[in-house]
Amino acid sequence: MAITFELTKKCPDTSARVGVIHTPHGKINTPVFMPVGTQATVKAMTPEELEDIGVQIILSNTYHLYLRPGHHLIQEAGGLHRFMNWRQPILTDSGGFQIFSLGNLRKLTEEGALFRSHIDGSEHFLTPELVTEIQNALGSDIMMVLDECPPFPCDYEYLKKSLLRNNDWAKRCKRAHRNEKQALFGIIQGGVYEDLRRESTEALVEMDFPGYAVGGLSVGEPKDLMYEVLEHTVPLMPSEKPRYLMGVGSADALLEGMKRGIDMFDCVLPTRIARNGTVMTRSGYLTVRNAEYSRDHTPLEEGCTCYACENYSRAYIRHLIKTKEILGLRLTTIHNLHFLTKLMSDARSAILENRFAHFIKDFFAQNEQ
Amino acid sequence: MAITFELTKKCPDTSARVGVIHTPHGKINTPVFMPVGTQATVKAMTPEELEDIGVQIILSNTYHLYLRPGHHLIQEAGGLHRFMNWRQPILTDSGGFQIFSLGNLRKLTEEGALFRSHIDGSEHFLTPELVTEIQNALGSDIMMVLDECPPFPCDYEYLKKSLLRNNDWAKRCKRAHRNEKQALFGIIQGGVYEDLRRESTEALVEMDFPGYAVGGLSVGEPKDLMYEVLEHTVPLMPSEKPRYLMGVGSADALLEGMKRGIDMFDCVLPTRIARNGTVMTRSGYLTVRNAEYSRDHTPLEEGCTCYACENYSRAYIRHLIKTKEILGLRLTTIHNLHFLTKLMSDARSAILENRFAHFIKDFFAQNEQ
Repeated sequence: MAITFELTKKCPDTSARVGVIHTPHGKINTPVFMPVGTQATVKAMTPEELEDIGVQIILSNTYHLYLRPGHHLIQEAGGLHRFMNWRQPILTDSGGFQIFSLGNLRKLTEEGALFRSHIDGSEHFLTPELVTEIQNALGSDIMMVLDECPPFPCDYEYLKKSLLRNNDWAKRCKRAHRNEKQALFGIIQGGVYEDLRRESTEALVEMDFPGYAVGGLSVGEPKDLMYEVLEHTVPLMPSEKPRYLMGVGSADALLEGMKRGIDMFDCVLPTRIARNGTVMTRSGYLTVRNAEYSRDHTPLEEGCTCYACENYSRAYIRHLIKTKEILGLRLTTIHNLHFLTKLMSDARSAILENRFAHFIKDFFAQNEQ
Repeated sequence: MAITFELTKKCPDTSARVGVIHTPHGKINTPVFMPVGTQATVKAMTPEELEDIGVQIILSNTYHLYLRPGHHLIQEAGGLHRFMNWRQPILTDSGGFQIFSLGNLRKLTEEGALFRSHIDGSEHFLTPELVTEIQNALGSDIMMVLDECPPFPCDYEYLKKSLLRNNDWAKRCKRAHRNEKQALFGIIQGGVYEDLRRESTEALVEMDFPGYAVGGLSVGEPKDLMYEVLEHTVPLMPSEKPRYLMGVGSADALLEGMKRGIDMFDCVLPTRIARNGTVMTRSGYLTVRNAEYSRDHTPLEEGCTCYACENYSRAYIRHLIKTKEILGLRLTTIHNLHFLTKLMSDARSAILENRFAHFIKDFFAQNEQ
């Protein structure tokens, strides 16, 4: 088995749970948040800085790496872990989401997706087989199947047809998969329609993947609708396998997801807003680039033990961001990743100690986001 | 005394020497290269990364800090060291060079320089007194007098007149200086004219500064001419005080400067070319962003012990730079600062062990730059 999942504890009050995913590159305590390293680097960070923060696994994007520098080059370098000097687990997505959002989609057939690169306009044809081959070459610990990820809102009839293709593609990915040390996860789609989510889940569970993702959420729908979909869908997913909610990274949604039984999350949000000068705190977002912080000699967040908060003031970080200095983005990125990593670790402790319901209540009492 | 200079060793073959500058923020082994932290940060680096590399002192720019975030704000934060979290010595320049090169100079009088900010076009009047006040507020260990730094080539008559004003400004800076823990250095000008350099040196030595800089070089003149000026000027400078060559940072010029008796150097070169994807090696410059390195899985420089070389390949660093990833610039910056810092430390050892002439010869035999 590529990975094994060990369920350690179930919350008595909610569907939250604590577990451990064992991978060839070490174990991951869940629930876990995975920072995104799109181009074989989590923007602005070294691997050691991620480790110091307590990051356990990162996500990297197949679409980007396929286009630049190319999966053959990375394979030649000894795989993605060695290429980027990251010793812990890596999850790669399938590229589907990027083809539909970044690339210029030319033609979608049963066979695959023809698209133009967002970099140089060159044409590429991505099939389930190719996406699997690329991820095999990258050597990630967890791979994802190719799927179509429709935006919100999406027509019921279109989604129903899309699901059939997704099921077919999932099977083809499974068949093409060539390395037993890598785990291939299925992705549940179906928009906000309960019966389609059920249909998708049942078809994928039938194929017996070592883990399942809920895809197609956080694509524009209201948060309450997302939570509703999770409430319908998660109970249908095998409890003995990891459950991954794709593209979610705000503190409130992480807690709401955990509460509904999700084990894994990823999102560019913490690193992206950091580069815009916004940081996450227990009381909500703080845009440190704003003029009101120009003479504020206190840390980003009082009591925070991250490198940025222990050594620098809001006034200094604001100065760096206003003057476009790289250290500014480094410090806000460190803070945000530390914030989410600590939130997850605190949540795990709360679940283990039977006080998760109180933990969530307490969090939302302070947080205005 | 703000600083004391201890001369440890003189090279028997050249004018090179090894010494120690004692400052309120610790000692500096000379000859030393000072990386530039223009806006209260050495671009892309944390203070800890600089310390790990062995950087002993950094330079920061009065002009930039005066405009943004303002010296009052930095003073309020507890001074520049605390504001930027750098515990070791800092040298601040006077802003003169920037006014003449970056700012839009409106009027130069005996009183001072009226210029427009390069940021927002606002008008400012910088006088020797104000420049001294700003540096006192910043709390740097070594301050520089305000001077006019003419470009090359420059008319003899103009330079002669400019020197008189510079001498007057140097006296006014000295008179305005308010903190005995900070050392104020004089700056020798005079272009490439031997008699003007002598005139400038004699006038400044008469004023008895704790250290002297050679300014107005590396401003467009051929390198051989710069070395000639040093050969005329350095012997006139007091041997018991530190000698600082401003704006020089290529490996060859550092060695040629040392050979002629210079103790301190600064330049944006290593950090600036790093951000363009060029690194310094013993055999010369290497532009790692070039296509020829795309599949090169060896380090930037074989045998180098910097963080970049010990953990990453040219192929990876090239990928990061091509995709505009911050980590790419961080790695090339680390390598270049490590390269120059190690070159200086190797040179100090060579001087101490009476083998500096051989050391230089050996360096130039390998280096093509």
